[in-house]
Formats: sequence, structure tokens, C-alpha cells
Amino acid sequence: MTSTSDEETRSARKHREMMQAATDAFIAKGYEGASMEEIATRAGVSKQTLYKHFADKERLFEEIVLATTGQVDAVVALVTSGLAGTVDLASDLRRLARQMLTTLMDEELLKLRRLVIANAERAPALGRAWYAKGFERVLASLSAAFEQLSERKLLRPSDPTAAANHFVAMLLWIPINEAMFTGDTRLRTPSDLKAMADAAADAFLAAYGPAPSR
Amino acid sequence: MTSTSDEETRSARKHREMMQAATDAFIAKGYEGASMEEIATRAGVSKQTLYKHFADKERLFEEIVLATTGQVDAVVALVTSGLAGTVDLASDLRRLARQMLTTLMDEELLKLRRLVIANAERAPALGRAWYAKGFERVLASLSAAFEQLSERKLLRPSDPTAAANHFVAMLLWIPINEAMFTGDTRLRTPSDLKAMADAAADAFLAAYGPAPSR
Repeated sequence: MTSTSDEETRSARKHREMMQAATDAFIAKGYEGASMEEIATRAGVSKQTLYKHFADKERLFEEIVLATTGQVDAVVALVTSGLAGTVDLASDLRRLARQMLTTLMDEELLKLRRLVIANAERAPALGRAWYAKGFERVLASLSAAFEQLSERKLLRPSDPTAAANHFVAMLLWIPINEAMFTGDTRLRTPSDLKAMADAAADAFLAAYGPAPSR
Repeated sequence: MTSTSDEETRSARKHREMMQAATDAFIAKGYEGASMEEIATRAGVSKQTLYKHFADKERLFEEIVLATTGQVDAVVALVTSGLAGTVDLASDLRRLARQMLTTLMDEELLKLRRLVIANAERAPALGRAWYAKGFERVLASLSAAFEQLSERKLLRPSDPTAAANHFVAMLLWIPINEAMFTGDTRLRTPSDLKAMADAAADAFLAAYGPAPSR
């Protein structure tokens, strides 16, 4: 059985290498500009091999988008699962905010995000995939966590979806838009990002935390 | 003097028509895809006339961006100036939120926004112009208004820039990203948008409003 497992591993590695080559090509040349031929060359495989793994360019890009958004969701799911048993919500919310921001301010991720937006009208399936599999999945993880916190009376009763939207919004609006518009993903130092994360977590707790006892 | 004034008017009208023709061309073909020749044809002027008004394609696009963001800023400045003398902050914040959202969810504006993001690396001056002249100007108007409200003790003491960021973030994160990623600017009905605006205004007031007396 060893040989089968080795083959699976080799095939999986090749698959991953093709996806990385494609990511590099898309970022360098745009979605329209990167050809399947160039991607095959970058990956060091034949066009046939590339097409055996990915039916066409749109599916290839979609798979990259899903892998990327899946990574983000995994981080958020991990951190939010830790919130359920929190004994210090203020500091755990700051930790969640910092980890989300660090994960999302990744240069390759932001460049892919811009590519998806740029092609949203030409290739609407990509934008919808990013939105549904990335954006909305993160909101769903957060929303579930906030609902549990409301049940424990650590947050005041509220619509958990609105709470999740507002948490993410306050955290990401400035740094993500700055990166989208300036094309520069490194405008903010780690300590800037930390301060922004803390400010968002604190404002969220002021808005959604338990009402002060009177 | 009438003839001079007539001429000025005619020239201003022509200038506006060229800008609209260019906007249509950029939205239809992208920034790279739209040529100065096509823009001149769409506007019904010669290439010489077009170049007399706009030194090159980048300046032309920059002028469109500035005009667009200027309109948004004018609306925000008008509404925030009304906040200074408010006697019902909760309802005036909802009104501000609704008007900002309606102004910003304009289809042409959102398509231009996507174009600017798409070209942020190739034409960074455009993205920086949008960010500085639109995005940051709106934040500055809001920030000044929130500072006055803090002085009147209608908001608790806080960093007015953070307050402005968080207000805009909660208001715009979902509908703007939805439009960017799906390419569809009409997903939300006016009553959806109203509910989103109210939710953002209410969460903002919970976070930044005066602390309840004990």
C-alpha cells in the first residue's frame, strides 16, 4: 500500500505546486493576462497535466479562492471556538481581533482579493465564491460565537448576524480599504494593526457588551 | 460680456460631456481598454479638443474620480453640519446613515470604485486620489462633527477619528463589499438599506453615546 500512498502524496504536491504557480501568474498578469500555458510552464508541467487537474482557468482560479478563504475561515473558527469558555471577554475579543487582522493583512491574500473584485463583472462566479465561502463563512463563525456569549449574558441580547457584521466592519474597513486603494499592503506596522484591532474590539464591547448595572 | 459668459458655459458643458463619455468608456472597457480616441468619439469631439481639456488619460480619470468623491463629500458635509445643533441625536444619526448609504450605493459610483481598486497597482495615483480626496475627506467631516458632539456631551469622550472610522465601517462594510464581489449593485432593496443604516447608527450610539447615568 505504500506505493499508492506515495503516489497520492506526489499528486497532491503537484496539485499544490500548480495552484501556487497559478496564484503567482494571476497576481503578476491579472486574471485575463495569465494563460493556462504560462501557468503550466511556471509549474513545470505539461498543459495536459494542468488540464487533468483543473478543467479550465475559471475552475483553477475558483479553487485558489476557495483554498485561500478556507485558510482564513480555519483561523477564525479556531479562535472563535476559544471564545465559548472565555473568562475575560475583553481580552479574548482583542486577541480574536488581532489574530483576524494579522491573518487577513497577508500580501498574497490582499492581491487575490483585488483580483477577484477587478473581475467581478467578467467572472461573477469567482466573486460569489469569495463572498460566500470566505466573507460569509467568517461571519457565520463569529455570529455563532456571539450567540453563545449572549446566552451566557456576556453580550447583551441582539441580532448575532448584525453583531458579527459590525465586529468585522470596525476591524477591517480602514486597513483593507487602504490596501485596496493604495495597492500597498504594508502601510501599517504591526503595532498600528494591534492598536486598530484593540480599538475595534473595545468599541464592539461598548456597543454589544452587557448593559452596565444601575 | 454676454458672449464671453456664453462661451464659458459652452466650454464647461463640453468639459462635462467629455467627462461623462470617459466615465462610460472606462466602465464599459476598463481603464486600459478605453482609449482617448474612443472617448473623443463618444463625446463627439476631436482628439485635439479632448487633449486640450485633459493632458492625458490618467489626468482625465483622476478628474472623474475627484468629481465623484467631491459629490459624496458634499452630501456628507451637508448632513454632518446639521448634526451640530441636533436635539435628537439618535434620529439624526439614523438620517445621516441613510443619506450616506443612499448616496454611496449609486451604481456608477460603485463601478468607478471597482475600477480604481482594479488599477491600484498599475495607476497608484488614482487609488491614492480616491482614498485621500474621497474616503479620508468623508472621515474628516464626520470626525469634526463627532468632536463637537463630544463637547456637547452627546457622545462620550473618545478619539473622534476612531469614532468616524467605526461609524462608516459599520454602515458600509456589508453593502459595499457585496457590491464589489458580486458585481451587482442592486442586491439590496431600499428598505434593506434603511434597516442596515439604522442598525449601524444604533450600534454606533451604543458604543459612543453618553454612558448611562447610574
